[in-house]
Amino acid sequence: MEHMRVRTDLALEVRESFAGSDTEVHGVVVEEDYDEERDIRLTRVRIESERGAREMGKPMGSYLTLEAPAMAVPDEDYHREISEALAFYIKELMGEERERSILVAGLGNRDVTPDALGPKTVSNLLITRHLIREYGKSAMGEGRSSEISGIVPGVMAQTGMETSEIIKGVVEQTRPELLIVIDALAARSTKRLSRTIQLTDTGIQPGSGVGNHRGSLTKENLGIPVIAIGVPTVVEAAAIVYDAQGNCEQMPPHLNGMFVTPKNIDETIKQLSFTLSEALNIAFQVRKEA
Amino acid sequence: MEHMRVRTDLALEVRESFAGSDTEVHGVVVEEDYDEERDIRLTRVRIESERGAREMGKPMGSYLTLEAPAMAVPDEDYHREISEALAFYIKELMGEERERSILVAGLGNRDVTPDALGPKTVSNLLITRHLIREYGKSAMGEGRSSEISGIVPGVMAQTGMETSEIIKGVVEQTRPELLIVIDALAARSTKRLSRTIQLTDTGIQPGSGVGNHRGSLTKENLGIPVIAIGVPTVVEAAAIVYDAQGNCEQMPPHLNGMFVTPKNIDETIKQLSFTLSEALNIAFQVRKEA
Amino acid sequence: MEHMRVRTDLALEVRESFAGSDTEVHGVVVEEDYDEERDIRLTRVRIESERGAREMGKPMGSYLTLEAPAMAVPDEDYHREISEALAFYIKELMGEERERSILVAGLGNRDVTPDALGPKTVSNLLITRHLIREYGKSAMGEGRSSEISGIVPGVMAQTGMETSEIIKGVVEQTRPELLIVIDALAARSTKRLSRTIQLTDTGIQPGSGVGNHRGSLTKENLGIPVIAIGVPTVVEAAAIVYDAQGNCEQMPPHLNGMFVTPKNIDETIKQLSFTLSEALNIAFQVRKEA
Amino acid sequence: MEHMRVRTDLALEVRESFAGSDTEVHGVVVEEDYDEERDIRLTRVRIESERGAREMGKPMGSYLTLEAPAMAVPDEDYHREISEALAFYIKELMGEERERSILVAGLGNRDVTPDALGPKTVSNLLITRHLIREYGKSAMGEGRSSEISGIVPGVMAQTGMETSEIIKGVVEQTRPELLIVIDALAARSTKRLSRTIQLTDTGIQPGSGVGNHRGSLTKENLGIPVIAIGVPTVVEAAAIVYDAQGNCEQMPPHLNGMFVTPKNIDETIKQLSFTLSEALNIAFQVRKEA
Repeated sequence: MEHMRVRTDLALEVRESFAGSDTEVHGVVVEEDYDEERDIRLTRVRIESERGAREMGKPMGSYLTLEAPAMAVPDEDYHREISEALAFYIKELMGEERERSILVAGLGNRDVTPDALGPKTVSNLLITRHLIREYGKSAMGEGRSSEISGIVPGVMAQTGMETSEIIKGVVEQTRPELLIVIDALAARSTKRLSRTIQLTDTGIQPGSGVGNHRGSLTKENLGIPVIAIGVPTVVEAAAIVYDAQGNCEQMPPHLNGMFVTPKNIDETIKQLSFTLSEALNIAFQVRKEA
Repeated sequence: MEHMRVRTDLALEVRESFAGSDTEVHGVVVEEDYDEERDIRLTRVRIESERGAREMGKPMGSYLTLEAPAMAVPDEDYHREISEALAFYIKELMGEERERSILVAGLGNRDVTPDALGPKTVSNLLITRHLIREYGKSAMGEGRSSEISGIVPGVMAQTGMETSEIIKGVVEQTRPELLIVIDALAARSTKRLSRTIQLTDTGIQPGSGVGNHRGSLTKENLGIPVIAIGVPTVVEAAAIVYDAQGNCEQMPPHLNGMFVTPKNIDETIKQLSFTLSEALNIAFQVRKEA
Repeated sequence: MEHMRVRTDLALEVRESFAGSDTEVHGVVVEEDYDEERDIRLTRVRIESERGAREMGKPMGSYLTLEAPAMAVPDEDYHREISEALAFYIKELMGEERERSILVAGLGNRDVTPDALGPKTVSNLLITRHLIREYGKSAMGEGRSSEISGIVPGVMAQTGMETSEIIKGVVEQTRPELLIVIDALAARSTKRLSRTIQLTDTGIQPGSGVGNHRGSLTKENLGIPVIAIGVPTVVEAAAIVYDAQGNCEQMPPHLNGMFVTPKNIDETIKQLSFTLSEALNIAFQVRKEA
Repeated sequence: MEHMRVRTDLALEVRESFAGSDTEVHGVVVEEDYDEERDIRLTRVRIESERGAREMGKPMGSYLTLEAPAMAVPDEDYHREISEALAFYIKELMGEERERSILVAGLGNRDVTPDALGPKTVSNLLITRHLIREYGKSAMGEGRSSEISGIVPGVMAQTGMETSEIIKGVVEQTRPELLIVIDALAARSTKRLSRTIQLTDTGIQPGSGVGNHRGSLTKENLGIPVIAIGVPTVVEAAAIVYDAQGNCEQMPPHLNGMFVTPKNIDETIKQLSFTLSEALNIAFQVRKEA
């Protein structure tokens, strides 16, 4: 299919790539919700059948896409609003509010700026597992009784191992009830960069992410639910050539392994990692009444 | 001129962009030298007249380009050869071998991987100025009697100042006899990335470099000779679209401020910064007989 | 004098070192103010005469010390209170509220954790000078019309230059009206570490700071007012031996160049640098009515 | 026992702490070897009985201590000699020379300078496991047929997990034949800092290391041999007070969790991590004849 030629990690973009984005795709439900006051758009893509999954090239499940144009612009109050909206949808995917043990994995290469989103997000999380195990829940602050652990596994060029091997080993040793993975994504269009957050309950499929080296991180593989949160920070170099040409006939092979990213990506990653870690810290708080 | 549409920091690429790269350009002399054993190609572009400078869009002076395909590949012995070749040409531009005081400036943004070449190179230099001033030249090792100082000025988004303002201030306070600036460059073609080193005695012109935010660093501006050493680590996003289209008619404006870089750029920058700092450390040694 | 044997950068500790800390020292005025609700203690030491300066071993001027026990403990709301209190006293030292151009220098070594306070604080500042120069004041947000620039000069082992040479050069080139320097300090007692902020309008004297390599940064030297903001993050190793022994007779020479610091200093520096940059960002806002 | 009051990670220092360092301790054999030309001293402490282990407070096994005064001083040729000596002893502990799969773990906190030795060493290793698995052994360079993988697990304050939980999980998933752990250690005396390397085949015991947060990493626990390589980079603050006082009666509790380290620890860690990674890269090469 023409529309699948160039890779994207965003379900939203796959959906749009079908000729006439309002064409119905069997087994794929799309809903949109726009919060005018906060200028945050939420699109829900639900892939409900195997046929839909085949056509979309993505597994069955929910894909929430939160779009906020000014997400990467420094402005404290605004971002608190984004963090809170994001926390709301993370909790929706987490289901029933209660204490639990959660492992957060920050995928990606901390030494390549647009790929450092996951590592930087984990470094700002409130990590509580060791404290609860040593001092008990009563020692923690209000609502901080979930056991939160975090891992930054590195990338294959640094470790010689699949990210999925490392995560699986850690999951089997420490037995969390839920895995949340944070990852920098590749978008199809530069318009999505740094202003879109995708949340899904389907985990991570092989070949996604900036460095293209993630193995499968799914409930099937790990035995626990996996929520993946990603922000597109790069576009494959091939994609912008494709856009210009309208076809791939002369796609130059030397663009393999190259990505396109904005020059101020350092500021963007700093801002986004704050928003994501703040959203997670909010989402992990359990209200007393709950 | 068609060939000037897309920016490059490499004189070699400007020269090649003229239809038929063997066309003579008035006032521009090109010489090539190939070291088969070490697989290192050296191209010398000398712009000798104002007319040549106008046509090339670069100031009069010498531009040495050292090309070595395996430059970014890890292999200790090979890179020692590149360091030594590079040191040889740095000394050629430095002129007469003798003790002197040299300031090395590592331009670029240490937080954006392909732009961190300058900062990382300076961090591996043997800095001697403070030691010589405190303990005298006799306390230094063999041939280490040049006063070497280093500065990493940061980029305008971090400092609010032009790099040239910071460097000029430091030069006026500390009065070195020579400034060497290290910078990551933008090439026209992905083929040049991480395998080409450009040396020039013309300093740095406004608008060059990865982040596009360098002011002028020249002898005219600073009062001392300026050698610039650069390695292309990115290509402007617009350039690869131009290549695909063959023209700029539909150059999409959203590609402004975007660059293309390889996914393993972290390893490349680490390797290149070692090679550059080793070459400088060798070049700064003064032989006793000299 | 016995009390001067071991070095401290805190005027408060010098004052306390006099036998009977309520002894009057000629020309030195001490005032205390305790905010019970926020548990913040403010001590003002004013050295008003040359004789007081001689006895204290510190230049004439104001030294404000803000003490808050939980300063380094993660708790967002509490720290906003500290940032606001700190901003209040920074504005007191800055004098008359109005638009101005301010250079903030983050002293210290970013590669040594307890010495990285200054560099990390500057990296979180809102830098506006280049934006105002390019787009005008009207383009900035509410009250953001002061031209803020920032510099991280590095330390002498990295640059071969005195910090004061670099700062002086930058000041002379860019002509700010005020210099604010941020620095990690050495305290006399581990009790002060990471819970004390010192502000002074006397600038920086030679030999202060964690790495002990700062030259003089004063109005006399630079021609503009200098406010220094410091937090003690280390104690000289000799100091804790002195405390244990009660005298210096057997002070072991191998402790020279060694410092004492807490094991969790990375978390502390992260927290403190946020508080300091937030306080500066607040202090630099000019109220419309003003 | 008096000699056990203050903690050290060095078997050599435990041995010396016995009154009269030539006293025989039952089941503990000490051998010394001095290489005059290279000024490298090698001490072998073998704990051969349970009684010796009890008296030494360390498990049975071999402890090799390599001392070289100028280890942290920059000098390329000299350090190549140290790397080669170290590689020789690593191979002695590895036993029979042959291809194998080895996991190297860099323990410690990369954000606290003296604790970053392990993470920095791993970042300079030649990682080959993924390459051999994808391209086969024939694609690797001469003698590079061992499958090398690396992990930087972080510390408990960052992950909420014991280092040993993470390592155990990774070992069980990826099944290496040998684990090598690199760690920054606490010495008893500042004289040992940055000039001593300890190698042991006994792995890591709980409570060792700079941050004091390592669990047990032993053959018993992991099912594969564990070689631990450590360099002392800090002294517990309590130790230098003890030295000054000669007893612990007034050991001040506020020194808990504080360590002593040299001011130039950043340069030292950079130098040492190069030496260690170079030694490992040499040790992992399998000679064709072997």
